[in-house]
Amino acid sequence: MILILRSDATSEQVDHVVKHVESLGFAAHLSKGTHRTIVGIIGEEDEARNAPLKAIPGVADVVPVMPPYKLASRDAHPQDSIVEVGDCKIGGGHLGMIAGPCSVEEPERMDRIAESVRKSGANIFRGGAFKPRTSPYAFQGLGEDGLKILRDSGQKYGMPVVTEVTDPRNVELIVKYADMLQIGARNMQNFVLLTEVGKTNKPVLLKRGMSATVNDLLMSAEYILSQGNSQVVLCERGVKGFDNATRNLYDLASVALVKTLSHLPIMVDPSHATGRPELIPPCALAGVAVGADGVHIEVHDCPEVAKSDGPQALLPDQYHDLMEQLRGVAQAVNKKIACPQVTDSATIESNI
Amino acid sequence: MILILRSDATSEQVDHVVKHVESLGFAAHLSKGTHRTIVGIIGEEDEARNAPLKAIPGVADVVPVMPPYKLASRDAHPQDSIVEVGDCKIGGGHLGMIAGPCSVEEPERMDRIAESVRKSGANIFRGGAFKPRTSPYAFQGLGEDGLKILRDSGQKYGMPVVTEVTDPRNVELIVKYADMLQIGARNMQNFVLLTEVGKTNKPVLLKRGMSATVNDLLMSAEYILSQGNSQVVLCERGVKGFDNATRNLYDLASVALVKTLSHLPIMVDPSHATGRPELIPPCALAGVAVGADGVHIEVHDCPEVAKSDGPQALLPDQYHDLMEQLRGVAQAVNKKIACPQVTDSATIESNI
Amino acid sequence: MILILRSDATSEQVDHVVKHVESLGFAAHLSKGTHRTIVGIIGEEDEARNAPLKAIPGVADVVPVMPPYKLASRDAHPQDSIVEVGDCKIGGGHLGMIAGPCSVEEPERMDRIAESVRKSGANIFRGGAFKPRTSPYAFQGLGEDGLKILRDSGQKYGMPVVTEVTDPRNVELIVKYADMLQIGARNMQNFVLLTEVGKTNKPVLLKRGMSATVNDLLMSAEYILSQGNSQVVLCERGVKGFDNATRNLYDLASVALVKTLSHLPIMVDPSHATGRPELIPPCALAGVAVGADGVHIEVHDCPEVAKSDGPQALLPDQYHDLMEQLRGVAQAVNKKIACPQVTDSATIESNI
Amino acid sequence: MILILRSDATSEQVDHVVKHVESLGFAAHLSKGTHRTIVGIIGEEDEARNAPLKAIPGVADVVPVMPPYKLASRDAHPQDSIVEVGDCKIGGGHLGMIAGPCSVEEPERMDRIAESVRKSGANIFRGGAFKPRTSPYAFQGLGEDGLKILRDSGQKYGMPVVTEVTDPRNVELIVKYADMLQIGARNMQNFVLLTEVGKTNKPVLLKRGMSATVNDLLMSAEYILSQGNSQVVLCERGVKGFDNATRNLYDLASVALVKTLSHLPIMVDPSHATGRPELIPPCALAGVAVGADGVHIEVHDCPEVAKSDGPQALLPDQYHDLMEQLRGVAQAVNKKIACPQVTDSATIESNI
Repeated sequence: MILILRSDATSEQVDHVVKHVESLGFAAHLSKGTHRTIVGIIGEEDEARNAPLKAIPGVADVVPVMPPYKLASRDAHPQDSIVEVGDCKIGGGHLGMIAGPCSVEEPERMDRIAESVRKSGANIFRGGAFKPRTSPYAFQGLGEDGLKILRDSGQKYGMPVVTEVTDPRNVELIVKYADMLQIGARNMQNFVLLTEVGKTNKPVLLKRGMSATVNDLLMSAEYILSQGNSQVVLCERGVKGFDNATRNLYDLASVALVKTLSHLPIMVDPSHATGRPELIPPCALAGVAVGADGVHIEVHDCPEVAKSDGPQALLPDQYHDLMEQLRGVAQAVNKKIACPQVTDSATIESNI
Repeated sequence: MILILRSDATSEQVDHVVKHVESLGFAAHLSKGTHRTIVGIIGEEDEARNAPLKAIPGVADVVPVMPPYKLASRDAHPQDSIVEVGDCKIGGGHLGMIAGPCSVEEPERMDRIAESVRKSGANIFRGGAFKPRTSPYAFQGLGEDGLKILRDSGQKYGMPVVTEVTDPRNVELIVKYADMLQIGARNMQNFVLLTEVGKTNKPVLLKRGMSATVNDLLMSAEYILSQGNSQVVLCERGVKGFDNATRNLYDLASVALVKTLSHLPIMVDPSHATGRPELIPPCALAGVAVGADGVHIEVHDCPEVAKSDGPQALLPDQYHDLMEQLRGVAQAVNKKIACPQVTDSATIESNI
Repeated sequence: MILILRSDATSEQVDHVVKHVESLGFAAHLSKGTHRTIVGIIGEEDEARNAPLKAIPGVADVVPVMPPYKLASRDAHPQDSIVEVGDCKIGGGHLGMIAGPCSVEEPERMDRIAESVRKSGANIFRGGAFKPRTSPYAFQGLGEDGLKILRDSGQKYGMPVVTEVTDPRNVELIVKYADMLQIGARNMQNFVLLTEVGKTNKPVLLKRGMSATVNDLLMSAEYILSQGNSQVVLCERGVKGFDNATRNLYDLASVALVKTLSHLPIMVDPSHATGRPELIPPCALAGVAVGADGVHIEVHDCPEVAKSDGPQALLPDQYHDLMEQLRGVAQAVNKKIACPQVTDSATIESNI
Repeated sequence: MILILRSDATSEQVDHVVKHVESLGFAAHLSKGTHRTIVGIIGEEDEARNAPLKAIPGVADVVPVMPPYKLASRDAHPQDSIVEVGDCKIGGGHLGMIAGPCSVEEPERMDRIAESVRKSGANIFRGGAFKPRTSPYAFQGLGEDGLKILRDSGQKYGMPVVTEVTDPRNVELIVKYADMLQIGARNMQNFVLLTEVGKTNKPVLLKRGMSATVNDLLMSAEYILSQGNSQVVLCERGVKGFDNATRNLYDLASVALVKTLSHLPIMVDPSHATGRPELIPPCALAGVAVGADGVHIEVHDCPEVAKSDGPQALLPDQYHDLMEQLRGVAQAVNKKIACPQVTDSATIESNI
């Protein structure tokens, strides 16, 4: 950590800075430049970070030199982590393909959607039973009934399931039904919830908050990892931008950046990033090309009656066509779509 | 609500749109323009809003004509709401002046800070006992001990207290000690938490999320109001911007806008908005000038040893000087600083 | 165009709105909803757009139903436009691969870089002779000497050249040397300059401004097209975002969106979008996967002595490796790298 | 300037960094921390800034310690600069009050508007004769005729005039008619234009670009100052934000920040910042409260027929009421509205 002193810092202030830094257990290394003095703090930056050094009189700025996350850092774990959701691997060259409707709906519809996405190549089934909705008057999800429906459809078509957790009091319940727990964008800095899912032994899909920096995202992963749960999959789903032509701003450079900073797998969610069905397929291909470890897509067989997010759902046929194209791009970047248990529709049929 | 159809919408699609809209219980009013057809939906927009109308084939866009919040809307309640925190009024010309350290610290320090801000004119005392920190390794607050310390210092100097709630399981505990519950920016869309504080009878300070639109903020207020708790005070504390010269981007036009859309009081928090002590006083004055119903400021008597956010704390003297200036601006816009119970230091002294 | 009236609009205001709209030569079609009246304006929206309809008393909002650009719109020209720069085609399945240093430097270096990028598969050579620099004290470019050097290196290695125009008074000069004129991001709304390049017969590379919406970008293209120059290639180069971990925020969904709205080719520039060499290759692959018609990359053989933007330059070897990977992704999305004149290094050698 | 080396920098790389830095004429001061080495560069940062130090192998980051602008810096000129436009002072406690329509329109209307704003207290008259419009099909201004009309109305009512310059070829013409030259937001980084107005002896109103940081704004001022023209007035007019409820995001903290960094006066423009008449008055008051040196407001006597920006114009009466309130806030922060030549309507009348 480096302290840059003000150009008008007095020698008393410089002395005080040095004494204060030393009183915290660090060595201080002064370097007097032409216009300013800088102070290198020698010691573990993790400890220095918690002290409000910028508040010391005479200090103009504090420059960290190390990332504030440890367990999530690639320095701590140079090789790609592979997270297993049921039999499905994510990371290290394996693409997780999550598909399904926004909300869990009636069992027959869930079966229909599960069958179609499974045949197209999806390997994890999704659906929300507890929905975080902007409006208190909107559909809030089917609750535990939804969890059962989701699990049953997943099992019938050979896919582990992922569903969102929104309440620390529900974690225990959801763990009984789900193979993977999703933390939604609006809860990415709900540290209470992160701590609770960190105490489970389930993989966690951690979606990036709408105004979270890459550093914020990795710090939220650190919360989960620091509780002992190492199975974290990150997910870029678009951030806030100034152009409302798309629902959010799909930040693919952040995916490439995360791959350099962290060993954790990271997926993309072009459904929420764009909010427009016609943009989802090209944006899914781009996600794989940039190095993502999987793609999360909302699929519904009749969007105009969907309980939530209908306008951004792909139809089963559109999803099928996308998966055909996606295999070509995946091959070009040496990735493969992981397929748990079954790969052909015959086996799927026999499962029913 | 208006549906704008695609320029290439077929007559079958137009018919289907009309039938679909009618099947939902609305009347559809077609208007054929030179290039496009638009469909006016006649009926209660609150009901139409929950249907995924944009997903109907042939629909290009859906344009709402009513705000999605009802209880928070000025239409529903044309006069300014006044929220009472202890004896202190906020709104309708009364300025709430919240001051105190970021985190609750040791009792002697809390007393010192409380005494000084009270003398300067603060009328609500603040301090966090459960802290939502970006890093799992940072100070997480004193918990229930902190709540007691905060309450005691507040009582000693005649100020009601506000503290942050982060966990739905803690609401019951915090209600015992606090006069006002704060929902922090990172939890503005933690709908589970909003619902819980909506069930209490305590005033709520709802901070705007870092990437929340004004509409999002009012919808989060609606969550609380819809549970029966009408005592909501909004707070602008800066949103994400592209220039990291300030911690956040202080959005004062949103305060003026909220005053036109809603009857709820709205405060400003220049401490979090700017993160720089030298900018806090002018930004506080501007907040009052734009029409805010109060100012929230972090004050610490020794920022270089503060448990959190030291670098953005004002010193007690700086707070005092700011309050002097603020009275002049308040007068120019016909606002007054509400003062519960005591106004002079003699009375404060006698309280101890 | 639709006018949404205020919920408190009086009948006098409604009458005035209708009369005002009719006085402008349009028909007005009223639709009275449960809470609000809307007015459909029947006629050419291009004419209605120039009237300040939102300023009419009683009007709450104005909703356009047509895009404000005509020549740039895909409605006007359903098939992809193909722009030819020298022998190199951009669009319609042909990828333009622009490479070269940020600034034109000395001839020997320019020759070295041109030779290497040509061998790797670049088909257009770039370099700035008139540089728009944030600081008045920074290197401003070699001027006309630079134009000559650029043209000579391009010719020697069989590549047309592109260079930036910053001053309307220099357009005539630059046209003599360049095969394509670049409008930089900071000049995207320099309408005077757009008008001037619109009067030439040279292809124009129009870079998206840092805070330009897709609509703004297409309106700037419209300026050029409306002067009679139909050879416009758009370029996404990153927009302003809140996370300074990357130089800008690479907005690939906008590329997919532009392909649906306009017939014009659009390239990507991952060099300026990310500003970090390690992120440029994956972001270039993603650009091709999302549907871009070309990639613009800065290459320098010794970045630590570059006259500008050295820290974001790829080395020739890095560019070579990227091009190898890029061919695979291009094939997966049915695109090919256009190659003017020569394709193998033997022919290049013989050109020297 | 400080170089932070990569944690895996080799000793050869460290040696090379030191040699490279020394070869540029600086001394290098190494400081080895627990995890990383940092290199302090001793010498004039203005020279170091132009070298691409971040491109040196082994360098992870470059941290400047001095601002990149010199003439605009408060270090260079500790006291507030006062800029005189005609007889009207801006800065150092004097508020410049610019008012008038967006575009210059017919002479009678201009006279009417000039008379009304002059009586309300405006001291500089505005109007655009060369308009930078997003659409090539929109009204582009009256050109030289407009300049004459503007000047005449200003003279008649005792106000100097400001108008926008968009083309370097027009600077000479506009200088003949205008007392102050405006650089619009879209041209803030049109360095060619900045250089041209820097060569004149007219005060310049430099509006902040829509995605310009405070540093970018001061660097653009530096362009003008470095040409010898010291009369620069900055103007905050809103930046791009994610919430389109307001036209732009009014960044008042930047005004307070500029006052600490620079001696140049800075005004606010709540008309463009908000785009909504009902928000302009409170936002104008806030601008004065935060420390701005003036307010720029668009006024039109019949917005529904305005040639441009009608929907954001204040009516003369609204402007009058605002000015009444504004005097109170100005007094509270020790500012006064400068009044060239005349202060009462009697004198104005006699001028006609």
